[in-house]
Amino acid sequence: SRTIKLAVIPGDGIGPEVVAEAVKVLGAVTARDEVTIETSTFQLGAARFLETGDVLTDADLAAISQNDAILLGAVGGVPGDPRLKGANIERGLLLGLRFALDHYVNLRPCTIYPGVTSPLTAPGVVDFVVVREGTEGPYVGNGGAIRRGTPQEVANEVSVNTAYGVERVVRYAFEVAQGRERKQLTLVHKTNVLVFAGSLWQRIVNQVAADYPLVAVDYLHVDAATIFFVTNPSRFDVIVTDNLFGDILTDLAAAISGGIGLAASGNINPTGRFPSMFEPVHGSAPDIAGQQLADPTAAILSVALLLDHLGLTDAATRVNEAVADDLARRTETVRRSTAEVGDAIVTLLTDKVLK
Amino acid sequence: SRTIKLAVIPGDGIGPEVVAEAVKVLGAVTARDEVTIETSTFQLGAARFLETGDVLTDADLAAISQNDAILLGAVGGVPGDPRLKGANIERGLLLGLRFALDHYVNLRPCTIYPGVTSPLTAPGVVDFVVVREGTEGPYVGNGGAIRRGTPQEVANEVSVNTAYGVERVVRYAFEVAQGRERKQLTLVHKTNVLVFAGSLWQRIVNQVAADYPLVAVDYLHVDAATIFFVTNPSRFDVIVTDNLFGDILTDLAAAISGGIGLAASGNINPTGRFPSMFEPVHGSAPDIAGQQLADPTAAILSVALLLDHLGLTDAATRVNEAVADDLARRTETVRRSTAEVGDAIVTLLTDKVLK
Ligand SMILES: CC(C)[C@H](C(=O)O)[C@@H](O)C(=O)O
Ligand SMILES: CC(C)[C@H](C(=O)O)[C@@H](O)C(=O)O
Repeated sequence: SRTIKLAVIPGDGIGPEVVAEAVKVLGAVTARDEVTIETSTFQLGAARFLETGDVLTDADLAAISQNDAILLGAVGGVPGDPRLKGANIERGLLLGLRFALDHYVNLRPCTIYPGVTSPLTAPGVVDFVVVREGTEGPYVGNGGAIRRGTPQEVANEVSVNTAYGVERVVRYAFEVAQGRERKQLTLVHKTNVLVFAGSLWQRIVNQVAADYPLVAVDYLHVDAATIFFVTNPSRFDVIVTDNLFGDILTDLAAAISGGIGLAASGNINPTGRFPSMFEPVHGSAPDIAGQQLADPTAAILSVALLLDHLGLTDAATRVNEAVADDLARRTETVRRSTAEVGDAIVTLLTDKVLK
Repeated sequence: SRTIKLAVIPGDGIGPEVVAEAVKVLGAVTARDEVTIETSTFQLGAARFLETGDVLTDADLAAISQNDAILLGAVGGVPGDPRLKGANIERGLLLGLRFALDHYVNLRPCTIYPGVTSPLTAPGVVDFVVVREGTEGPYVGNGGAIRRGTPQEVANEVSVNTAYGVERVVRYAFEVAQGRERKQLTLVHKTNVLVFAGSLWQRIVNQVAADYPLVAVDYLHVDAATIFFVTNPSRFDVIVTDNLFGDILTDLAAAISGGIGLAASGNINPTGRFPSMFEPVHGSAPDIAGQQLADPTAAILSVALLLDHLGLTDAATRVNEAVADDLARRTETVRRSTAEVGDAIVTLLTDKVLK
């Protein structure tokens, strides 16, 4: 029997509540498989920072790295909390982990499930994946300011893009596209303005495309892409894009497909050299924390991505199907607690197995 | 009587067709005022580049600068035209003019007019303005690459933000907000990741806010802002944001409010030291050029912004009202030519005056 070591980071706000349901589902879906999940919980986030002053220590990183995968709820304290001023937990922790563990693929599927209400009148059949670069671009922390606080201040931010970094994520995106029915890959960038970074991305996409003759490739400027997200989202199959554009587009993708309550993500190191991390796209929502009001679906769908990443594709499919079933049965009138949603999905999973 | 010198840049594709209607409307709305419009036409764009190899010469700039304002249709050749390879007309011309004429305010209103179909199910009453910075940020052209074309390539893009540049556009945005009914200003940025630029923007907004006690200020990360654009766009009144975020958000704004066929923009130098430039947000759409298929409404609404900028607020209001009238009367079944739309708006303008 295979043992999977899972680092669990419940985090702040609604994080612990949604993670509890995700872990529950993980247990249920693997119960009959030859798999043992061994979880270690890491108390990281705003609460931990307030207690110890640490966001992510070398010891944390070393211990987390011992695991096969990471499941994260959400991190971030109450906005405006004076004790967190200047701390930036999200950046220190999320970006800290993504960079330290070389999560160069940030995978964010966007599906409008049957029964889910989209804010769009006529979205059509929407089922695409955004492959967002995770370790480069404007996220590298390569900025600075001079004459800070004076009328002569200059503050710069540098977007760093390397052939090495772009090629590996582009290749991953082509693999994803090739494995899908439509085999269609869209590069999103702003090549007409960011000419150096844009030219690198475009050239690498062109080069790698030669190795994937079955994949059809097109290109959209990021501004134009947002238009298609609301007027014709079903045109997309796989999108590959830079770290910042991917950040923006995936929140928009979540919004059109029923909200960030349903959006899952994987921060993946495809080489396996470091554990990959799975997390809902939503934040810690301190305003509704501890009240069983949060929807755990995004966390549960992140478990499906985790299972898929670990090669447990059958279990991943079962989680996805159970979530789809649950979404199709939802009614506006019945409001369920976080745990009730988790339980319902577990029941649907178990029913399926028995049938 | 006042004489206004107007530089007209019809440009490429549908540019000349929509500009013809815009000029027609401009003539009609000012016919009874003590105003003479003196137009000079500048043949700039892809067609001119193919003929002469020039995009924007010092002589062009000097001649354009002699005018009180600029009306631009759209520029850009047929995508993939091998003769335009590497030319990047949009950047050379649009950004060339914006930077040379110090258009630090890029003003883009977003209104869902009665009768216009939004792709959103329940947009509510949408009427906001994006004040996009126009001369800084990632648009400054401050990028570079080393080891180009090799596996060791590094391509950087620098976003440059100055206290001087941020303060003047933020102050303008506060002025706009103060003049509106709701007096609500939202800063959009990505302060949790772009910490240096973000901190500069946030500090300047906080400082300038002290001079505008009636304006309520809030902040959204750019990713979260896109969610509100589709789930609750009526929450916005005035948005102030950087050049790239503004580019992305205004295309999204256009999409939710009926398409880029209706989106107008002003590239404004509020000091009057250089002529301001008014243009539809849409591109040159070479695929439908010369067939009278383009909607001139965005160009005509740009004329309203132009009139407003020149202090002809009454005429501006009349154009806006005529456009609103025309939009309210549109039916899906009747397809009008570009000129027919322009004529209809002129008729509505003239009827109003006679009533
Ligand atoms: C919290 C923030 C640093 C993060 C990001 O910008 O990547 C978040 O928005 C996300 O998309 O996971
Ligand atoms: C054509 C391009 C350079 C331009 C921009 O990015 O500003 C356009 O998208 C716009 O918004 O006016």
